[in-house]
Amino acid sequence: MSKLRFNIAISVDGYVAGPNQNLENPLGEGGEHLHDWLFKLKTFRALHGDTDDGETGPNDDVLREAFDNVGATIMGRNMFGGGSGPWKDPAWNGWWGDNPPYHHPVFVLTHYAREPLPMQGGTTFFFVTDGIKSALSQARKAANGKDVAIGGGANVAQQYLGAGLVDELQLHVFPLFLGSGVRLFDNLDARKVKLESIRMIAGPGVTHLKYRVVK
Amino acid sequence: MSKLRFNIAISVDGYVAGPNQNLENPLGEGGEHLHDWLFKLKTFRALHGDTDDGETGPNDDVLREAFDNVGATIMGRNMFGGGSGPWKDPAWNGWWGDNPPYHHPVFVLTHYAREPLPMQGGTTFFFVTDGIKSALSQARKAANGKDVAIGGGANVAQQYLGAGLVDELQLHVFPLFLGSGVRLFDNLDARKVKLESIRMIAGPGVTHLKYRVVK
Repeated sequence: MSKLRFNIAISVDGYVAGPNQNLENPLGEGGEHLHDWLFKLKTFRALHGDTDDGETGPNDDVLREAFDNVGATIMGRNMFGGGSGPWKDPAWNGWWGDNPPYHHPVFVLTHYAREPLPMQGGTTFFFVTDGIKSALSQARKAANGKDVAIGGGANVAQQYLGAGLVDELQLHVFPLFLGSGVRLFDNLDARKVKLESIRMIAGPGVTHLKYRVVK
Repeated sequence: MSKLRFNIAISVDGYVAGPNQNLENPLGEGGEHLHDWLFKLKTFRALHGDTDDGETGPNDDVLREAFDNVGATIMGRNMFGGGSGPWKDPAWNGWWGDNPPYHHPVFVLTHYAREPLPMQGGTTFFFVTDGIKSALSQARKAANGKDVAIGGGANVAQQYLGAGLVDELQLHVFPLFLGSGVRLFDNLDARKVKLESIRMIAGPGVTHLKYRVVK
């Protein structure tokens, strides 16, 4: 059955971005370090078009699995980027250049309608203005039996978690205190959401905690 | 060298107690489940005077290690219990009965002076009114070369973490969302505190993440 899966890198003190996020510093002050383990991985490089080298091992296995069998991604407007409010001209087309690393349909939750935006490499951005359930339903259809991933950010994850719609949650816990910024588990009363540990992997420099939501 | 070590059970969403803590429910609503994995362990039972049975295995190994080579404990007034404000008559003597599970000197941070309180089994509670550095210095002296443990709660841990005085931090991450309550990583700008992963153990039902503070 098609699952809704969420992977995110998080500091030991529970932040997924540092303070003062802006266009130059989308993960806030210090937040870029949450991905220090990621950039050097073979799978990360392959997804970004650099297929010839990169680190293999447990972290790479976890990343490959996170993208495996994913047929669509959902993300928030803030993660897609370009500032808040109506779309500007020329329109922002994402952080990822002409060939984004998704290579499948991506559904962007926004208050501002916009035509679908096809990119190179199989990624098309669709802009959804009628809420998280509609986005999930459209993403499931586009995924055609494969899983759907929540790309982020924290706000979108909170909405899906709080609504009990997430099936699998994996936290990549990075040994860092950010001290302030965006907490993943905020604005969220998830007491009714029951978790079960699936698997823990201690990779070099980062720990991967994977949970199933018990339905 | 004598280390300052801190072990605490924490929910996936970062809480060490649920909402509405009180004398009947010291860990708040739902917070008692953070210790579900603990009560059945052989080491836990032995520390509480029941030496004949209990679960062994990775969780028990972690707990035994957490108490091993600890010569003194520091805790906050809230963890010692009995409500806030001046000591009442008859005085509160802790949650743990006549024979508390520490079996060494315990330093309680409080604003209200009180005579030392010797208990059975080697635990004596000392009441420290002149701050965290004084408590640490007294505890180190009492530990006589062994390590000092922070018993909790969150507020005391935050003070020691924020001051950069903790040497080792171990989080026992329990697969539970508490949704609200007491966050461990709050009231704390620990950005200057650098962490290094020491060891990750996936026990049955709980994951143990151990970090060293880089000095």
